[in-house]
Amino acid sequence: KTIVCLAGDGIGPEIMESAKKVLTLTERLYEHRFHLQDEAFGGAAIDQCGQPFPAKTLEACLASDAVLLGAIGGPKWDNATERPEKGLLALRSALGLYANVRPVEVDEAVAYLSPLKEESAKDVHFVVVRELTGGIYFSQPKERTADQATDTLTYTRKEIERIVEYAFQLAQTRRKKVTSIDKANVLESSKLWREVAEEVSGRYPDVQLEHLLVDAAAMELIVHPGRFDVIVTENLFGDILSDEASVLAGSLGMLPSASHSETGLSLYEPIHGSAPDIAGQSKANPIAMLRSVAMMLEQSFGLREEAQAIENAISSVLRSGRRTGDLGGTETTVSFTDAVLEAME
Amino acid sequence: KTIVCLAGDGIGPEIMESAKKVLTLTERLYEHRFHLQDEAFGGAAIDQCGQPFPAKTLEACLASDAVLLGAIGGPKWDNATERPEKGLLALRSALGLYANVRPVEVDEAVAYLSPLKEESAKDVHFVVVRELTGGIYFSQPKERTADQATDTLTYTRKEIERIVEYAFQLAQTRRKKVTSIDKANVLESSKLWREVAEEVSGRYPDVQLEHLLVDAAAMELIVHPGRFDVIVTENLFGDILSDEASVLAGSLGMLPSASHSETGLSLYEPIHGSAPDIAGQSKANPIAMLRSVAMMLEQSFGLREEAQAIENAISSVLRSGRRTGDLGGTETTVSFTDAVLEAME
Ligand SMILES: CC(C)[C@H](C(=O)O)[C@@H](O)C(=O)O
Ligand SMILES: CC(C)[C@H](C(=O)O)[C@@H](O)C(=O)O
Repeated sequence: KTIVCLAGDGIGPEIMESAKKVLTLTERLYEHRFHLQDEAFGGAAIDQCGQPFPAKTLEACLASDAVLLGAIGGPKWDNATERPEKGLLALRSALGLYANVRPVEVDEAVAYLSPLKEESAKDVHFVVVRELTGGIYFSQPKERTADQATDTLTYTRKEIERIVEYAFQLAQTRRKKVTSIDKANVLESSKLWREVAEEVSGRYPDVQLEHLLVDAAAMELIVHPGRFDVIVTENLFGDILSDEASVLAGSLGMLPSASHSETGLSLYEPIHGSAPDIAGQSKANPIAMLRSVAMMLEQSFGLREEAQAIENAISSVLRSGRRTGDLGGTETTVSFTDAVLEAME
Repeated sequence: KTIVCLAGDGIGPEIMESAKKVLTLTERLYEHRFHLQDEAFGGAAIDQCGQPFPAKTLEACLASDAVLLGAIGGPKWDNATERPEKGLLALRSALGLYANVRPVEVDEAVAYLSPLKEESAKDVHFVVVRELTGGIYFSQPKERTADQATDTLTYTRKEIERIVEYAFQLAQTRRKKVTSIDKANVLESSKLWREVAEEVSGRYPDVQLEHLLVDAAAMELIVHPGRFDVIVTENLFGDILSDEASVLAGSLGMLPSASHSETGLSLYEPIHGSAPDIAGQSKANPIAMLRSVAMMLEQSFGLREEAQAIENAISSVLRSGRRTGDLGGTETTVSFTDAVLEAME
């Protein structure tokens, strides 16, 4: 299996190191062979080749079995002509990564870190499924004059159907409830979204569908997070709501994500950013990255046991009280990773 | 002073009754004359005249000194050809209500109701300024075929300038900090928004400006609400973020709002909806409505003392332990209102 590793910027290279160590140990313990191939991406690629998503990186991704991404961006490139984020959008589009999947769970050992009161925090067990290659991010025209600027939000029935199907299939493996989020009282695209969600729901009689307006959803995530199982929504609402949802878990450093395409190629990355303020100091929490590796092993390679071993090792290290700084502990990226490796052995 | 009263639907008429009682007492205590004029709006207007915003209501609003709105909507009109919300959008547009202002404060007496841990909840003191007559709500084209739907998000420099100016002026009367929220890493309209915010900020050297991406803002509202003083943002982001922000206060039943136009005509309404489930039972919390009345007295009529008297009366009733059901108490809409009237006397 070839895994393309896009370390990226800031803390990206440090957490990618952790990922590689865990993959190397997994090879040894379970007798697999992973070919780990580094490629330039994001700000690092701008520095090396003048653009955030070089053709060589694209080719490598397309030829790979899965892509691991660290994190990108930083103040260094804030005024660059090409920005690192552009590379991310181009990558999503080029690989057809239409289904962004973010499980949000509160780890018992660190539940006290949630900004929510304990009663609510312990109810957080849901997945956000975000449409990632359509909507206002990519629709044309985008226009700009000195006095006016325009963006366009288009969705086709096909695009909506594909992502909503994904959500229903995921819900069948979980608590069998889909919450579709839109703004159907204002947007034409949301009216279509709601219609298609209803149609798809007809094909999944065992799964319950509810619709929620995006403004109501922004409230319900905080007040009644326990009502959600699988959330499905369009690109921009997904951007906002998945970030809102992620802070409920107490630390962004704990949450992984996957982005799937129709071809079977998927990308895995922590949900957090490149944290330039702590880069190079071995302060980053590697958990989100290691969980992204576990998701990859399970979802791209069908290696359930291996994935579970990583998850278990993380939980047992947390339970032993060892933590990185973001969780109030004193472990470094390296020492926490080493503890996970030890727990896996 | 002529005040048009749009009671609307659900609990709207009940809380409007409370508002009228408080206004009548204010007339007596402070020797004013208010002419309270009822007009049909929302679902009630659909039932009476087949449309949510009849011409007679529009004329009355335009001829008035201020408009008070209860709440609109309900399942009864979910499948109507004309929906109550359409009336609300038409009203905002017809009166030019471009600046929606929502103060979010946690009342000490009910701070324990916030879903946030106490340390965070006590830091919530900010105002959301939402652009209310532009953006994706109103921009053309909105198109729909069987297989595709499109919305358009346009902002002009003028529209942005007007609302950002409003925010800076408000910030000058407060803690002198404006947080402008956009999605400038993806949207053309947000890039223009950010440029104009920078330009306007040059005219207010005493006010600090920061920019925040909407996804980051959705997190920061929960994790660091204390960092905000005045938030300013475009229509759809404002819809989502102001609802998210409002639950931090513990009960939607406590928060008022104002919507201002360039002509000096303003509309005041509670931020909560029409709560059809408890309509007609005298269960609604009238506080958000009474605070909206106080905002009207101060902001439209310059009656600071009168506004303060209402605010003080509400606080003292809360401190005495009397509360409606949403706050865990047993008072009715009527009995709570009577307690406020007594406290004012
Ligand atoms: C960097 C940015 C373009 C991106 C997005 O908005 O999709 C990010 O916020 C994300 O959620 O991955
Ligand atoms: C009813 C709806 C159209 C409206 C909006 O989205 O503006 C409401 O959510 C609000 O915030 O006042």
